[in-house]
Amino acid sequence: MILRLAHVEISAPDLDEARAFYVGLLGFVEQAADERACYLRGAEEFDAWSLKISRGDGGGLVHSGFRVSEPGDLDRLEAIHADRGLPVVRVAAGTEPGQGDALRTVTPDGHRVEFFHDFDEVELYPEGRLRMPMRDSHRLTGVPPGRIDHVSMRVPDMAAALGYWAGDLDFSTAEIWLDDDGETPRVAWVRRTPRSHDVALGRNDVPAFHHVAYAVSDAAALLRAADLLGDARIQGRLEWGPSRHGATNAFAMYIRDPAGNRLELYTGDYVRDLDRPALLWRPDDYDQQGHSWWGNAPPPTFGETQPLAGEWIA
Amino acid sequence: MILRLAHVEISAPDLDEARAFYVGLLGFVEQAADERACYLRGAEEFDAWSLKISRGDGGGLVHSGFRVSEPGDLDRLEAIHADRGLPVVRVAAGTEPGQGDALRTVTPDGHRVEFFHDFDEVELYPEGRLRMPMRDSHRLTGVPPGRIDHVSMRVPDMAAALGYWAGDLDFSTAEIWLDDDGETPRVAWVRRTPRSHDVALGRNDVPAFHHVAYAVSDAAALLRAADLLGDARIQGRLEWGPSRHGATNAFAMYIRDPAGNRLELYTGDYVRDLDRPALLWRPDDYDQQGHSWWGNAPPPTFGETQPLAGEWIA
Amino acid sequence: MILRLAHVEISAPDLDEARAFYVGLLGFVEQAADERACYLRGAEEFDAWSLKISRGDGGGLVHSGFRVSEPGDLDRLEAIHADRGLPVVRVAAGTEPGQGDALRTVTPDGHRVEFFHDFDEVELYPEGRLRMPMRDSHRLTGVPPGRIDHVSMRVPDMAAALGYWAGDLDFSTAEIWLDDDGETPRVAWVRRTPRSHDVALGRNDVPAFHHVAYAVSDAAALLRAADLLGDARIQGRLEWGPSRHGATNAFAMYIRDPAGNRLELYTGDYVRDLDRPALLWRPDDYDQQGHSWWGNAPPPTFGETQPLAGEWIA
Amino acid sequence: MILRLAHVEISAPDLDEARAFYVGLLGFVEQAADERACYLRGAEEFDAWSLKISRGDGGGLVHSGFRVSEPGDLDRLEAIHADRGLPVVRVAAGTEPGQGDALRTVTPDGHRVEFFHDFDEVELYPEGRLRMPMRDSHRLTGVPPGRIDHVSMRVPDMAAALGYWAGDLDFSTAEIWLDDDGETPRVAWVRRTPRSHDVALGRNDVPAFHHVAYAVSDAAALLRAADLLGDARIQGRLEWGPSRHGATNAFAMYIRDPAGNRLELYTGDYVRDLDRPALLWRPDDYDQQGHSWWGNAPPPTFGETQPLAGEWIA
Repeated sequence: MILRLAHVEISAPDLDEARAFYVGLLGFVEQAADERACYLRGAEEFDAWSLKISRGDGGGLVHSGFRVSEPGDLDRLEAIHADRGLPVVRVAAGTEPGQGDALRTVTPDGHRVEFFHDFDEVELYPEGRLRMPMRDSHRLTGVPPGRIDHVSMRVPDMAAALGYWAGDLDFSTAEIWLDDDGETPRVAWVRRTPRSHDVALGRNDVPAFHHVAYAVSDAAALLRAADLLGDARIQGRLEWGPSRHGATNAFAMYIRDPAGNRLELYTGDYVRDLDRPALLWRPDDYDQQGHSWWGNAPPPTFGETQPLAGEWIA
Repeated sequence: MILRLAHVEISAPDLDEARAFYVGLLGFVEQAADERACYLRGAEEFDAWSLKISRGDGGGLVHSGFRVSEPGDLDRLEAIHADRGLPVVRVAAGTEPGQGDALRTVTPDGHRVEFFHDFDEVELYPEGRLRMPMRDSHRLTGVPPGRIDHVSMRVPDMAAALGYWAGDLDFSTAEIWLDDDGETPRVAWVRRTPRSHDVALGRNDVPAFHHVAYAVSDAAALLRAADLLGDARIQGRLEWGPSRHGATNAFAMYIRDPAGNRLELYTGDYVRDLDRPALLWRPDDYDQQGHSWWGNAPPPTFGETQPLAGEWIA
Repeated sequence: MILRLAHVEISAPDLDEARAFYVGLLGFVEQAADERACYLRGAEEFDAWSLKISRGDGGGLVHSGFRVSEPGDLDRLEAIHADRGLPVVRVAAGTEPGQGDALRTVTPDGHRVEFFHDFDEVELYPEGRLRMPMRDSHRLTGVPPGRIDHVSMRVPDMAAALGYWAGDLDFSTAEIWLDDDGETPRVAWVRRTPRSHDVALGRNDVPAFHHVAYAVSDAAALLRAADLLGDARIQGRLEWGPSRHGATNAFAMYIRDPAGNRLELYTGDYVRDLDRPALLWRPDDYDQQGHSWWGNAPPPTFGETQPLAGEWIA
Repeated sequence: MILRLAHVEISAPDLDEARAFYVGLLGFVEQAADERACYLRGAEEFDAWSLKISRGDGGGLVHSGFRVSEPGDLDRLEAIHADRGLPVVRVAAGTEPGQGDALRTVTPDGHRVEFFHDFDEVELYPEGRLRMPMRDSHRLTGVPPGRIDHVSMRVPDMAAALGYWAGDLDFSTAEIWLDDDGETPRVAWVRRTPRSHDVALGRNDVPAFHHVAYAVSDAAALLRAADLLGDARIQGRLEWGPSRHGATNAFAMYIRDPAGNRLELYTGDYVRDLDRPALLWRPDDYDQQGHSWWGNAPPPTFGETQPLAGEWIA
């Protein structure tokens, strides 16, 4: 039913500054823009865009969008949310460029989520000949980021969050970092794709945004990104990594954008069928090798989150 | 319903020779063996095995195995095949090590196919601590291959083959290489996973085996494999590549094993939702950049196939 | 005395076309230009330039420049050449931008060669802070090529060529591809740096130019270059590779520029002291793994050469 | 005269433990061994060995060996050291396996140094056919390290050390990290090869050993090394990195061996002629990007050194 995370909308106070960072330095492709937002995509994406940056007071997560496998899924999702007593609003095709009819809601944990089926792809036959989006390297610069991979949300109630994502929405729980009691989830990675996750859920006092991650083609892309930051003399934006995560097995690096939003560049997680049981990290193992398989702990700033930002009509 | 290609069984006249090549040189992990067959897996696979090599008269494809999302799918698949008039045989759990009840058939094009749900995973908690299969690099050698990606079959009737795979089995057609008439499929790539394909179907006089492909973690793994062949003074086994395919966008290399079976090492194809329309290669475009995006044509031997081999009980 | 190959001058009929290829697509840095020539460098070079492209009737090699370790070496080299009866001409500082006094000659095999000591480096302290040339990745595009590595010349008399380069100029002979007699050099790689070669000398009817090579940082750079050519739909310019050479051990790829000049991208040769004896390739070994350690032979066009081109005042 | 750093001898209390780490895990090649020492080399080295590990009370540096360009250099070096009043001892060929006559001394800063010309290479024509040492990947495991690159020594008097290395021994000073006064060297990188350094000299109360570095073929080798440590559950041995150094531009990682000796894996520094003036790091620049171009500071343990260890006959 739900196919995957398809886009996120984040907030930034200065769109030109955001564009210089995401497009000019890192190599995101700008696909559309208006006065209030720009719409970017990674170099390997068939979808027209996956990252919307909206002008706002500061950093933060506005909403996450999920693509469903058929138009009728919107009706089924509306019923599921209505049964739950969650708000649902239908928004018309074109509310966001290239997107069809959509259903908006707020999760039990306060996150803004949107579901849709119809979504434009990039032009695939320029001059009549097939060209896949990533086969444009003579025009690309920067890393470049490949495709949106996952969003990491902080939630006040992990049990409620898992009841919604793994229960109502039928996400598969790929991994769980267990709390000191050896039972309660502290962080959970849930997914609709066979890779490690579409959404990471971590415990926090209030709903908040931790990071959005883009998959890159290989480990060298992360080193290139770190060099880009150093060469541009903004090495302070590199918050953590590159390093191998134990959880998800990904080779990853975290960058803070000019508005404070955290971007992860990510490669090398695994493929495992959705029906397989969750992988369980005992708290002592996680401390030793879960965050970093190489043993290097994240910096204290890694605990910082960004708020939910902007307007939401659900 | 069908999740993905899960394994292939190929034939070789000398298991020790096959083992020296696949395990000793390339770095497959041997998980089980008896007198008639050895069972190997790639280094990134959670499933216990994905490549069965059976002792036989020569090279060839014995069968392909597909994992389904729930046990009840076997009944549904039995009905579909019976309606079609195709042979179906149930085989008991344990017929192959670690595999549960399975359903065997022969496709309309003469290929031997097996469906199953239950299949053992590797040990994930040695000494009580989570360890993913690929986190064993201190014991791995060779490339190593990561995980099974796809099988390439030759079929006498493309329309019938697509009627079965894309019709009956609900595979998504990712790409089509069109014949000179601009309409008839010459090769089709079909899939149940969001990547480019699980099965490639190409036209041939008789049902035959072209290659099995393993995904590797990055492009460097292919260069390492080519160096391994050169260093072992068996460079003649490198048949084609490394090169970038236009179709599938993968960076790929083809190796012939001691029995003549063709193994592809493969990385870098794309992710695209299953409901998206097939990408179409016009014959002139395919000639120029479909086989190789870099323009270098495959060698004449690349047209060779291996027969179907061994026994099949369906 | 002679430190290394420092630059080559090649000929092209259309400087804008050459610039689009070398700078726009591959990522060479343009350091200076006038109506008759442009002066480029690789991204990792401290020297102001290493590739001069001069407007001429077609492709070809104009001259090769070598840097010497101290100014007085020019006098010593003048004496050596005069003793040999070879032409020597002194050219004033500034004849080429950033270059000091130079000595020009024609080798016994008809190649035009220049020696100099003084040569400008790039600006190393922009805004007062040290920045090495390669730490500019946020402004670089393309591959990019790193630094000039070697030039490959064809010569009519190998014995005379080795007498000059290995004898008079004290180059170390790193490797020799022996002719069918097992004694006579067919190709020789000679060097003043501890890497595999500065100059390759191969037998030919007349003095001619085979290729100039740029070292890149890693194997992935060659794959990126091949993708760039494919993505720009000029895949026909990729002549051979990427492949591992047996001789030199380098991972290499050959590209033809719009004027027909051959550019090699090159990485991964070895380091070995200059006094060590030459490595010898028997003809049968060379046929099997010398050209390509992976066994794939170069295409027939690889035998093509470009003429000596342009004017030379020696 | 002096060609380069050729080997170091380090101390370890348990040779089997050292062998398991260097050979078994990291992939050094063991070339010779006796009861008191083992002799290892990197996979890309022509020299028979470059790392001697001697049984001793703990970790530490025993001596560093430098190869000279001709046998007569030993006489010239003896005179230079005698003029200086430094101890010189001739040791006979064979004192270390494969090494010819050598000259031993103690530098003005208390470091033990050896000079020699004759030194065996590995077998280059097994079975009569040329095979370079690195073309043995089907037998190699681990990272593997490529070739010895440099040794980092701590010295009590930087001026005296530079007087010796850059003065008496004619090393080129590649880079200097200036002290807060903007004049006095705090660390200096000196070299006889065109790469960034053979010896790093850093200020310390007493002569001490900081690290020995091995060059690897590309950045991916460092990530592989980090994964090896994590997979072997000895991730605590990874002390710092992988990260890009500002000074030397290298991509580097530091590992502590079981005896506490620090091993750097290193790739991607530059090539620059020996006569070029030293690159100068102002203290504030060095703090920001000299240690790490990416801004991440080394851990406090990185200041630890190992003592000089073992016996020395000079």
